[in-house]
Amino acid sequence: MINEPDFYGILQAADRIAPYIVKTPLVQSASINQLTGARCFFKCENLQKAGAFKMRGAANAVFSLTTEQAANGVATHSSGNHAAALALAARWRGIPAFIVMPETAPLIKQQAVKAFGGHITFCQPTLEAREATLKRVQEETGACFIHPYDHPEVICGQGTAALEMLETMPELETIIAPVGGGGLISGTLLLVRGTVRPLQVFGAEPALADDAKRSLQTGILQPAVATATIADGLRTALSPRTFGIISEHIDDILVVTEENISRAMRLIWERLKLVAEPSGAVPLAAVLQYPEKFAGKKTGLIISGGNVQLPG
Amino acid sequence: MINEPDFYGILQAADRIAPYIVKTPLVQSASINQLTGARCFFKCENLQKAGAFKMRGAANAVFSLTTEQAANGVATHSSGNHAAALALAARWRGIPAFIVMPETAPLIKQQAVKAFGGHITFCQPTLEAREATLKRVQEETGACFIHPYDHPEVICGQGTAALEMLETMPELETIIAPVGGGGLISGTLLLVRGTVRPLQVFGAEPALADDAKRSLQTGILQPAVATATIADGLRTALSPRTFGIISEHIDDILVVTEENISRAMRLIWERLKLVAEPSGAVPLAAVLQYPEKFAGKKTGLIISGGNVQLPG
Repeated sequence: MINEPDFYGILQAADRIAPYIVKTPLVQSASINQLTGARCFFKCENLQKAGAFKMRGAANAVFSLTTEQAANGVATHSSGNHAAALALAARWRGIPAFIVMPETAPLIKQQAVKAFGGHITFCQPTLEAREATLKRVQEETGACFIHPYDHPEVICGQGTAALEMLETMPELETIIAPVGGGGLISGTLLLVRGTVRPLQVFGAEPALADDAKRSLQTGILQPAVATATIADGLRTALSPRTFGIISEHIDDILVVTEENISRAMRLIWERLKLVAEPSGAVPLAAVLQYPEKFAGKKTGLIISGGNVQLPG
Repeated sequence: MINEPDFYGILQAADRIAPYIVKTPLVQSASINQLTGARCFFKCENLQKAGAFKMRGAANAVFSLTTEQAANGVATHSSGNHAAALALAARWRGIPAFIVMPETAPLIKQQAVKAFGGHITFCQPTLEAREATLKRVQEETGACFIHPYDHPEVICGQGTAALEMLETMPELETIIAPVGGGGLISGTLLLVRGTVRPLQVFGAEPALADDAKRSLQTGILQPAVATATIADGLRTALSPRTFGIISEHIDDILVVTEENISRAMRLIWERLKLVAEPSGAVPLAAVLQYPEKFAGKKTGLIISGGNVQLPG
């Protein structure tokens, strides 16, 4: 827990979480290749347990706790996939999970946490209320805080997705991962840069939530801004830790339009027959928007999750 | 082409089509198991090439033709998945495919056939016009007619889906396949009955298109009736050949409500993160509607296809 995340931490994570997670498939579509001019390989983390790559980081964090550290359970604040994943990982370990959620969190997310046995404490939908509530819950329970992305073992867990991609398709030339808080892209970068292969790694984020791009350009960590992007999982800002890893290792951050995110979701549905959440379609949106960067290249795209609220 | 379909024909088909088709995954969901009380294993033919199991039968039929038989191409009448699958199989073999389609066929189906290089001839949306137009096309081109389901090699091809299911999960106790024209369920029955394992095999069809159930009950092949079921792939009637196989071998046909078909589609989306067409959700609808038949049983369900027209 005290070490910074690195390549070897990812290898250890892969071993640690193997009994719990799904080795998700890497799928292709001839028609998407024809349309984009790239050779796309989609890593289906929407088929991961709890419906998102967050399962990897949460499982790794929970199972790397010592018996003492784990004794009083784990806690986090999240209105998204990390909350459900942490609740499930805690259930597997047989410890309680305390989740602080804004009262405005979608019902489907609340239900997922409850279904996995998590204890929800609601708070006002502000950062201050969230942090104050989490602090109170930790004081009352003694639970160990597992941050959604600013956490070494979470980052190492997320890196196992890219590890599996290279195991399945060692000749990949490029990998694209969506960027929200930066946990997935950081794990991906640490994994790839720990190998001798000259892969390019791109982050992708909505133009409406381009704080990572602007952080990279200015060299100063930019805060999240209120945004209406449909890629709700990517509205978060980077942390100092993930910003540092990204600054050091990334080839570039590609920003994409909402229109291309919608086009990408539709292609994933129609051609791959898979349900992706908007955030999970952002890497394909980057290939649609910057085809010249990927022409003819074996490109790995991480479909980060599949948790969408259905109408009706 | 002259033999009736049987177990050995299916084994040959598996060998013949192996270079062309996808060995689709067999997936599970803990929450669907909890909800239904069954142990469900979903065969993902929505992830098959051209988006449906029809690829298996079409590929087997096309590649079992002699050079002479194949010389002038293949022809069929279909407004659905068989048309696209036949066009793709013909392209692989390097021969033309002539597809007779009603003018009313959905644009997405027309586009799929064209994308695979098929030649479309439109006709009035009646059975008579369809058959007359097909006859004319055959006379003009000399193409070999590949019926969508009343065809021995098509039935053998469809049986390879169940073969893969048993290879992956030999301890299956029950298999459920949707019933339209009867090609898939016939292939499934011939495969299962050719093994010594005591599997139950059920067909599933919408109550609004229950011609197979009534055929089985009366012992007389019932014609298709005009129906508004959302499971558009299952509106077809059986043929004498598929009716014969089903009568001899099936455990039962389970009819399901439209409401359960919708519930099943939603579950497949939400829990499996997969896009199924309504017909492909009909086996799960049967588990939802008749839970007592499947309680605790290892049940294989064929998600027959994923080709749905998206709104917008």
